[in-house]
Amino acid sequence: MLNHQFRLAQRPVGFPTRDTFQATSEEVREIQDGEILVKIQYISLDPAMRGWMNDAKSYIAPVAIGDVMRADTVGEVIASKNPKFAVGDFVNYSFGVQEYGICDGKGVRKLDISLAPLPVYLGVLGMAGMTGYFGLLETGAVKDGETVVVSGAAGAVGLTVGQIAKIKGCKVIGIAGGAEKCKMVVEEFGFDACIDYKSENIKKALRTHAPDGVDVYFDNVGGTILDDVLTHIRKKARIVICGAISQYNNTTAVQGPSNYLSLLVNNARMEGFVIFDFLKQYAQGLEQMGQWVKEGKIKPQMHIAEGFDTFPETLLMLFEGKNTGKLVLKV
Amino acid sequence: MLNHQFRLAQRPVGFPTRDTFQATSEEVREIQDGEILVKIQYISLDPAMRGWMNDAKSYIAPVAIGDVMRADTVGEVIASKNPKFAVGDFVNYSFGVQEYGICDGKGVRKLDISLAPLPVYLGVLGMAGMTGYFGLLETGAVKDGETVVVSGAAGAVGLTVGQIAKIKGCKVIGIAGGAEKCKMVVEEFGFDACIDYKSENIKKALRTHAPDGVDVYFDNVGGTILDDVLTHIRKKARIVICGAISQYNNTTAVQGPSNYLSLLVNNARMEGFVIFDFLKQYAQGLEQMGQWVKEGKIKPQMHIAEGFDTFPETLLMLFEGKNTGKLVLKV
Repeated sequence: MLNHQFRLAQRPVGFPTRDTFQATSEEVREIQDGEILVKIQYISLDPAMRGWMNDAKSYIAPVAIGDVMRADTVGEVIASKNPKFAVGDFVNYSFGVQEYGICDGKGVRKLDISLAPLPVYLGVLGMAGMTGYFGLLETGAVKDGETVVVSGAAGAVGLTVGQIAKIKGCKVIGIAGGAEKCKMVVEEFGFDACIDYKSENIKKALRTHAPDGVDVYFDNVGGTILDDVLTHIRKKARIVICGAISQYNNTTAVQGPSNYLSLLVNNARMEGFVIFDFLKQYAQGLEQMGQWVKEGKIKPQMHIAEGFDTFPETLLMLFEGKNTGKLVLKV
Repeated sequence: MLNHQFRLAQRPVGFPTRDTFQATSEEVREIQDGEILVKIQYISLDPAMRGWMNDAKSYIAPVAIGDVMRADTVGEVIASKNPKFAVGDFVNYSFGVQEYGICDGKGVRKLDISLAPLPVYLGVLGMAGMTGYFGLLETGAVKDGETVVVSGAAGAVGLTVGQIAKIKGCKVIGIAGGAEKCKMVVEEFGFDACIDYKSENIKKALRTHAPDGVDVYFDNVGGTILDDVLTHIRKKARIVICGAISQYNNTTAVQGPSNYLSLLVNNARMEGFVIFDFLKQYAQGLEQMGQWVKEGKIKPQMHIAEGFDTFPETLLMLFEGKNTGKLVLKV
């Protein structure tokens, strides 16, 4: 049985390309006592993957050259020598960009596909969902009735943040690229408004939609949009630094927020996090999110791309703003 | 009796000059019922004054063209028609850059010059002291045993921050300009180390003096130094944005912190404040600081410049790094 993989061939400068990766294949080996073999069905594609390709000190070690590219995955157990797992179990584990994964079961999450379809466990019931959940509720410390702005609004994390903020009784303004995404965010996901950064003046639109200013800004994009929102925050505002997708493929220095002194005059804060900072509360977050999904209060939005071999090009969709909701690759 | 004043003549672009101000004089008028007349003895010179000259929305209205330049002052009551104040009382009030001030007594603080010399009430027992106190303890939420870095270490706020951090059992590393200032900060004020940004590589020096990283960075300067410290923070670090003196006289955009994504990977925060955010706790802060001054745990460091007429040039000392400790102008 042949296992196809994408390995990191070289560290990209700017956007990753097909040459960034090496397509390899090898026989799936026999599993040993305690191990499970998983047939991977969906691979999570995340903006964070771009950071993992850099040889830089970060919250997690870089992917080594020659290693299978790191990625979160869901799949089905097809062989088990581990008493905790049976053939037919659905599981979530960071197996990387490949078709089959073998591990000893540590850190593997069993999934209940009667509650939600399998790929949703990479979306609102996975890392993207928990990133929105803890980022908004813990780091953002959002309160009932506040005004929340979220960029990358039509993405996996953005849609989660907006929907949770609505559950919490907030006014929610998205920022997304293109009229179609903005329409979806408002009409299908209940945002109060959505600013199209490709055609609107963000500062002006913020004055219209948030006349009293912004209490929580959940930033997925960085760059000019972060600077624009900084000009319109309220006293004691919280800016949640979740990502900076506009900057990940820079070949020059990251654009720092020139308007950061707005934090000073507004007694406001800018705070970053990664989901690994909330491991202790993770189970509680998943339970709450599962409840909301069951009640129809959170709608999972999946963007399922097909074809394992398209991985390098499909990954780029994230940086080109071509996906809506959680982008996964169906194996 | 003639009252000399400096009024704002025009909004400076870049550094303020003598032409930024207009020297005026007028007869001191009679005081009315409820008013006091104060002979101003010391005028506080603060980096924040540069911001007040800009026509921009901020935490306080800009000084209007033609108005007496705003400044904090201490002086002696020389006439009173207010039962709460007697001739001979020493007081603190924001009378601005002039020799005499008249007001109705609201917001005027009476000073006990048996506890500390009069100008110290513009230093550690005034706004500079309270800025360091609340910035470090509240915004910075400093804890015993942490590693604290403070820039502008030889300035009024920096010296206060460093001394309080030592009282709180922290390791304290200053950043200042020049060997002489660094020597003073360590030998006279008990900092554990001080980095001379004019001759040392800050990142390298931080690795030496704070091998485990920085828990609290109290930033008075912004610019490249902020970016350098951002590369060396610990998990859950707090960056207190108190000022950005390196940027106040820019004729181009403020330099935003290019390394702000360090907040993300370190689950850290950057939080701003102005002293007016702590008015409710102000009295308690002054009492504690007064106690520490009495016990000799906080040493007031005053830089007293003489000659009312030198105001425009003396103010520039702040931006040229020529003062050590609290800069005041003796009238």
